[in-house]
Amino acid sequence: MTSRDGYQWTEKSGLVQGVPSIGVIHPPSNIGQKQEQYDVIVVGAGYCGLTAARDAALSGLKVLLLEGRDRIGGRSWSSNIEGYPFEMGGTWVSWGQPHVWREISRYNMRQELELSRNMSHEEEDKLMQSALEKFVNVDGNLGKTVMPFPHDEFHNPEVKQFDKLSVADRMVQIKNQLSPDEYTAVLSFVMLCSASTPEKTSFYEFLHWWALCNFSYEYLVKYKFRGGQSSFAIKFFQEAVETGRLSYAFNSPVASITQNQQRVEVRTRAGDVYHAARLISAVPLNVLNDITFSPPLAQGKKTAATTGHVNKCVKVHAECRGSELRSWTGVNYPNGQLPYALRDGTTPNGNPHVVAFGADHNRLTPDKDIEVTKQALQDLTKMELERVVFHNWADDEFAKGAWFFSPPGLVTESLDDMRARQGNIFFASSDWAVGWRSFIDGAIEEGTRAAFNVIQDLKARKGSSPIKSVL
Amino acid sequence: MTSRDGYQWTEKSGLVQGVPSIGVIHPPSNIGQKQEQYDVIVVGAGYCGLTAARDAALSGLKVLLLEGRDRIGGRSWSSNIEGYPFEMGGTWVSWGQPHVWREISRYNMRQELELSRNMSHEEEDKLMQSALEKFVNVDGNLGKTVMPFPHDEFHNPEVKQFDKLSVADRMVQIKNQLSPDEYTAVLSFVMLCSASTPEKTSFYEFLHWWALCNFSYEYLVKYKFRGGQSSFAIKFFQEAVETGRLSYAFNSPVASITQNQQRVEVRTRAGDVYHAARLISAVPLNVLNDITFSPPLAQGKKTAATTGHVNKCVKVHAECRGSELRSWTGVNYPNGQLPYALRDGTTPNGNPHVVAFGADHNRLTPDKDIEVTKQALQDLTKMELERVVFHNWADDEFAKGAWFFSPPGLVTESLDDMRARQGNIFFASSDWAVGWRSFIDGAIEEGTRAAFNVIQDLKARKGSSPIKSVL
Repeated sequence: MTSRDGYQWTEKSGLVQGVPSIGVIHPPSNIGQKQEQYDVIVVGAGYCGLTAARDAALSGLKVLLLEGRDRIGGRSWSSNIEGYPFEMGGTWVSWGQPHVWREISRYNMRQELELSRNMSHEEEDKLMQSALEKFVNVDGNLGKTVMPFPHDEFHNPEVKQFDKLSVADRMVQIKNQLSPDEYTAVLSFVMLCSASTPEKTSFYEFLHWWALCNFSYEYLVKYKFRGGQSSFAIKFFQEAVETGRLSYAFNSPVASITQNQQRVEVRTRAGDVYHAARLISAVPLNVLNDITFSPPLAQGKKTAATTGHVNKCVKVHAECRGSELRSWTGVNYPNGQLPYALRDGTTPNGNPHVVAFGADHNRLTPDKDIEVTKQALQDLTKMELERVVFHNWADDEFAKGAWFFSPPGLVTESLDDMRARQGNIFFASSDWAVGWRSFIDGAIEEGTRAAFNVIQDLKARKGSSPIKSVL
Repeated sequence: MTSRDGYQWTEKSGLVQGVPSIGVIHPPSNIGQKQEQYDVIVVGAGYCGLTAARDAALSGLKVLLLEGRDRIGGRSWSSNIEGYPFEMGGTWVSWGQPHVWREISRYNMRQELELSRNMSHEEEDKLMQSALEKFVNVDGNLGKTVMPFPHDEFHNPEVKQFDKLSVADRMVQIKNQLSPDEYTAVLSFVMLCSASTPEKTSFYEFLHWWALCNFSYEYLVKYKFRGGQSSFAIKFFQEAVETGRLSYAFNSPVASITQNQQRVEVRTRAGDVYHAARLISAVPLNVLNDITFSPPLAQGKKTAATTGHVNKCVKVHAECRGSELRSWTGVNYPNGQLPYALRDGTTPNGNPHVVAFGADHNRLTPDKDIEVTKQALQDLTKMELERVVFHNWADDEFAKGAWFFSPPGLVTESLDDMRARQGNIFFASSDWAVGWRSFIDGAIEEGTRAAFNVIQDLKARKGSSPIKSVL
């Protein structure tokens, strides 16, 4: 099936909207005309919503999953084009990520992973490691003293001061310690992580990533699925469907969510109305204000959503003829429009595949001007373009940005607000996970939390187990 | 409640069998006289069995949990004595352990952890790191080349050759590279890990641990629960009970397991008989042959169980008067009977708490001769003993050893055999986990696998979801 999401360009076809994905669900709904009262409605079918819907359905709840797109996966999905999986969003996983690994292990997919880079780049890795160590070394201990416990990030409250600093502020502090190559390496790499600008990016959030990666650049190189991200996401969806308790409707963007003490009502943009005892909003931070909540979102939540996260990534894949790019990483900040790029795999045609990351600085809009993007790729290194595939996350109406990366102040001021329940609505998103926030792992962490809390809540309401079942 | 397991000695009481634990379940059974047909019987209420029983019950299956002991937790449990939790078995957890961390996160317990050592021991840690690096450095890359992917341990099949080596063999290879202090450090530490002798311990298995710990001694220092292990295990049990679908009987050692194509029959030593469609054996490797299986265990499984793992740990806690032991680690191999000991916490009386680990070399039997054990503690360092608390795992009838550690050859030859299903019986244990084998994480990994497979299997049998439920 072909999703509306993503674009592809070849010499022959020109720019075409939509790419094929096994994550597209057809038919898009299994609801029919019947009116039902659900136990829980889950809004959003990314990993967070999929996990919440699956866990709730497995536990015996009657679940409705609503999704604006035509596919599962949210900000992580893959397009399979001529036998090759292009990762359109979140990609990397590892056994150091507890929630995602539990699922990979449970679905017996641990042997379906491959390294996301073919080769190590020893000198480059050494340069990057030494540069990043200077960047994070605020405590003479590579950050281990200020953030000893990344899954309880404020364990040492001293760390909060670093959320007052932007990456630009931090660069000023250390610029005399860095060689010109190190300076470029740090900035390009951090802009790869935040896909924003140094001024808008919180230094604290990078410290958190660093601690999660065991305080080493080495663990930022991760594994990816041989069959693409959608081959993983579909497992969650299928398992939920197989319970017989999952109703779903894709192509169903939600317009409004209204609650009273008894139930929650959801109205889609098309005017369909659904009811449930509880609702899990797995809607990303940057589009939370696009839904009308009644009563309105709590002030803290609304403020956080208005601030938003800063990641404006445009992810661009290039399939190039010829094989000069055997092993290669390109950094190109601040002059280029794609600050970071790397040689990834090899397509079935034997062509090198390069993946490049655009950021908020000099932002590309390839859907509007593909020629500028093709030139930006050429600015990285000379390549003969066979195919360009991309997802412009910055302008995606259901995300308005890619993975979460915070501006200064947002996490220390608003994390609790973003995580808070409001009446019968539970808010879940990787954007406010406490562990691997921004990552697929954080999405699963949050989906797990939401389903667990809804089940406990309904159990308390009934005074006993909500779930009675027989074979 | 007081468990029959464990022993305590004080000057006043002398040696007393049994220590208090919140893991003791009372009343020990909720079955009553009714005869029921269960979907699945789970034998063993350690973390593996608890996870399997919980997941199966959550998914709507009717579950019977049978356990020989009077408590949950198996080889991981804690005794709370005068307000202080003594860890009687498995203790350490970390966010680098995916299955355990998913549960800690899900039960919202991430802020209930504390470091298992109060202080770092810089010089000692440096000595240990350098000595262990020489020990594992078979590939000039600290083991990263031969075991790049510890959760798919045979990814590089070259690694299998190291399962032909014992630790003693490896020590011969490197003895000229080690200082006398390094030599003692390595052997004491590896005997802490295997609780056996260098001759009986596989070098390969230590390589696997090392890789799981990100190739660093640093990550072997882990976190533990402030409230003790049993405060974690009880969450699994309570959640399973709350489904209303868990029947259980403690003090019910299983004598025989008989299966035909339709069902499985379990007979306890007391003569009680139970039936189910499927059975999950969460029985440890070293006692698997103590149950009579009909038809008998497959040859590969039987052989592995006859070989057994080599860990014969006797875990000994000492509460000592006075505070000289502010920060201390003792290594004492091969002369002492407790090759490794460390200062852990401080009891509510303000006394230092030392935890010591006995191994198969010069094995202690403190339940038979407490005076010898008290002397072995004194041999580590002069201490005034206020209290001794211990669990002799080597002689424990339901474990016959502590956490899994393999002799040469066992893992490479028998891992698949140990993991294999046999008819309607699924075998699950940390002893044959593929990730953190031997750890609580591996137990949860295996319990998750077993429940998932049983549910899939029953679903396939029925041709649809096994679970129909309503609020």
